[in-house]
Amino acid sequence: MSNATYPNSPSQQHDAPRAFPAIDAAVARAADAQAHYGTAPHATRSALLRGLAAALAADAAALVALANDETSLGTTRLTGELVRTAFQLRGFAERVEAGAAAHTIDDAAVPGAPPAGRPRLTRVLAPLGPVAMFSASNFPFAFSVLGGDTASALAAGCTVVVKPHSGHPQLSHRVHALAERVLREQGLPEGVIAFVGQATRDAATYLVGHADISAVAFTGSYQGGVALWRAANARPRPIPFYGELGSINPLVVLPAALADGVDAPATALAASIALGCGQFCTSPGLIVIRDDAEGERFAAALAQALKAQKPHAMLTAAMRQGFEHASARIGAQPGIRTRLAPSSTDGEAPAPRLYETDAASLIANPVLREEMFGPAALLVNVRDADDTLAVLAAVEGSLTVTLWGADTDTPEHRALAAAAQRIAGRVLFGGLPTGVAVCDAQQHGGPWPASTQPQTTSVGYTAIERFLRPVALQDAPQWAIAANTGGIVS
Amino acid sequence: MSNATYPNSPSQQHDAPRAFPAIDAAVARAADAQAHYGTAPHATRSALLRGLAAALAADAAALVALANDETSLGTTRLTGELVRTAFQLRGFAERVEAGAAAHTIDDAAVPGAPPAGRPRLTRVLAPLGPVAMFSASNFPFAFSVLGGDTASALAAGCTVVVKPHSGHPQLSHRVHALAERVLREQGLPEGVIAFVGQATRDAATYLVGHADISAVAFTGSYQGGVALWRAANARPRPIPFYGELGSINPLVVLPAALADGVDAPATALAASIALGCGQFCTSPGLIVIRDDAEGERFAAALAQALKAQKPHAMLTAAMRQGFEHASARIGAQPGIRTRLAPSSTDGEAPAPRLYETDAASLIANPVLREEMFGPAALLVNVRDADDTLAVLAAVEGSLTVTLWGADTDTPEHRALAAAAQRIAGRVLFGGLPTGVAVCDAQQHGGPWPASTQPQTTSVGYTAIERFLRPVALQDAPQWAIAANTGGIVS
Repeated sequence: MSNATYPNSPSQQHDAPRAFPAIDAAVARAADAQAHYGTAPHATRSALLRGLAAALAADAAALVALANDETSLGTTRLTGELVRTAFQLRGFAERVEAGAAAHTIDDAAVPGAPPAGRPRLTRVLAPLGPVAMFSASNFPFAFSVLGGDTASALAAGCTVVVKPHSGHPQLSHRVHALAERVLREQGLPEGVIAFVGQATRDAATYLVGHADISAVAFTGSYQGGVALWRAANARPRPIPFYGELGSINPLVVLPAALADGVDAPATALAASIALGCGQFCTSPGLIVIRDDAEGERFAAALAQALKAQKPHAMLTAAMRQGFEHASARIGAQPGIRTRLAPSSTDGEAPAPRLYETDAASLIANPVLREEMFGPAALLVNVRDADDTLAVLAAVEGSLTVTLWGADTDTPEHRALAAAAQRIAGRVLFGGLPTGVAVCDAQQHGGPWPASTQPQTTSVGYTAIERFLRPVALQDAPQWAIAANTGGIVS
Repeated sequence: MSNATYPNSPSQQHDAPRAFPAIDAAVARAADAQAHYGTAPHATRSALLRGLAAALAADAAALVALANDETSLGTTRLTGELVRTAFQLRGFAERVEAGAAAHTIDDAAVPGAPPAGRPRLTRVLAPLGPVAMFSASNFPFAFSVLGGDTASALAAGCTVVVKPHSGHPQLSHRVHALAERVLREQGLPEGVIAFVGQATRDAATYLVGHADISAVAFTGSYQGGVALWRAANARPRPIPFYGELGSINPLVVLPAALADGVDAPATALAASIALGCGQFCTSPGLIVIRDDAEGERFAAALAQALKAQKPHAMLTAAMRQGFEHASARIGAQPGIRTRLAPSSTDGEAPAPRLYETDAASLIANPVLREEMFGPAALLVNVRDADDTLAVLAAVEGSLTVTLWGADTDTPEHRALAAAAQRIAGRVLFGGLPTGVAVCDAQQHGGPWPASTQPQTTSVGYTAIERFLRPVALQDAPQWAIAANTGGIVS
């Protein structure tokens, strides 16, 4: 509010960043395209989103084959992911057509003195500008070149600079070439979806710091995400950074959930832990059970069911190495019992692991609350509801919390639901956290480190709000208001 | 997303923070009260907001007298500000009653496989938790103990820990005592509005870093705000920080605005520049005029009108010193012409100043784009619309941009409106930026440094969204959904 000296920001105290001409060129294309794309009718956005969905679907067989060559995730999973990605693009198109980016709040002028008296104010939504989008490793379609972040940014009228993931470079190039073809066919500048190719960590940092980038979307590792979040904050003028950095997704098994036996729930949970070789951000990593005979039976059944799971290979050798390190680290902590561990860490795919501890150890030792990104989970034995509440309070910041057996309206269940809501973006009262529906009500985020911006979502249609900024137009002529509503008549 | 090591955050590499038991006690009160207040029916929130408004109004004469003793802002201005503060509290009460914090998005379950098939999801809004609220110097009522940040946090169901401003300590204590009385009368815990008293910079940093604080609201100086924003980001688990840090509020005078002569607009603008002794965050600090005979006549009239303004004393000696320093610094830059400056900097109140430069100098020299927090402005002579666009692009990050004479729908005016929207939270097509209406359509924010969170507002009723976090409830029983809608039936 006073005596701003913002040009003397910390980032200017460092040496000048290295030059990355290819990034400069990609950002320049996106910035040039922004002026056109950001002010075009919203029908331009929805047509582009639909065109991209159609192009993905038309090329599905070849794209899935290429993705499978690069990731070994299997054609069934990859086909499903491509279908989801196209569904998501069409879903954003529908929301744009329904006016999601054209929403206004109109306050008529009120004569007289303030505070009641006022000028006419119309609140419109303006695109932030070019978005740097960092692809994730584990979803080569759904969180990659044309994934959710790109779809929501395009829906908001923002151009995108895509940084592909090194885990699937050829697929990323191929999908980007497909996007370029759609842009050409629709007469749009290629900078609407620009592409920087592979990038070193320095280059990625440079992209985040580029003066013409207005926001960043990132899904990936905690270390990589925090480094880029710091870079966004170290800019002379910081910009919004939407990062999804990690989550251990507690799942609480209350006695009522085991009333029909332990086998079916244990088998379902084991499949969720091992799904995608545990490389899902919503993978249930912390299983809270009662320290009693029924809990013991469940734990044994879970170990058994998990042993029977045969995960596919991990996406990269580095991720495999990271998982071996993280799980060995958990296993070596004091107070840890290893319920299930492979006799060897050889083989193409990692075998599942299951560890066990008690509430006091989990609360005392932050290492036990770290994510193991792979097919592993940690059981936590609790004596009662208070123990469970203490465990949830120690966890903090998770994409999901699942409560099994908390359906009835009791003070204990209310306390658990409140504790779960405090730390999570999504609270499940049944089912499994893996699988994130793309719809209006979805919330994929949560307090740090689940999200760097816990009030926004990276999945679901309100994600469009991440790339829009409200602007109040005061006593504006009609053309100035209409310039922001993109020809949508509401 | 993988291998999180978040306990090893940078803040833990520093020495342990000093102990501040009074802050610990205040935060503990707020955290204890949160469990009750955050889950109470929303009618509890609106009754509290209305009770606070009534208590302010009932005590108005004594409060204004005390405020005037401490700030010398004058009883007229202070009475108006108190009335506005009570109006704002009642306005938030009305929005709570209308369901602003009870809004849900409900997606019914869809049978079948994903992506179309899905469980039932209900998106609710949950309060973030205890908010640390830093009062501003320049609005002893409206941005202080019971100001907009407190009102919006309470409306969202968050308890508040108030850090008063040192410019009006007795008033702050008195208003807090009034709030405590209302809390008692309504049977609410005193921790709903906790109070830390005066605080050193270390103590303020400690408050922001406290584990039980969930968000921070700050209005104040760039230096102080950035320091606390860094503290929020250095926490083991960073939290949302809503800071309003500075703004130079460009006002563009196009030829059409002077069609009826220069005197009336110059007089109105001079009054806005000197209003509140220039200690308003929306004070117009950069006046863009055409480099022609008409522009020169306007500049001369503005200097004349500004000379006639007699501002009151500044709020504190430090602010006066800061203004003298900032304006002298601008006046000493190369390429600056001083249009109006006092022969002496003595006297209780500072005399207004007016400087002048050209577009190229302003763009080349970041010092010229710094805020002078006081009754001063910088004229920028431009040759044409392109010059103006270049000036606006160089400014970035302002609460407001005002365009005078841009009413007609021309390509030039469209380009100016777009450039103004890119850097500002509010764009005016007439009138003056000082005076910020409290209503639904208001947007008081903008890119950095106007706001650290440019997609949110610190004035107007959508400010409630800053303190709410969406949570998706999956397959939730009705009681778990109802626990978040506070008895509001929509």
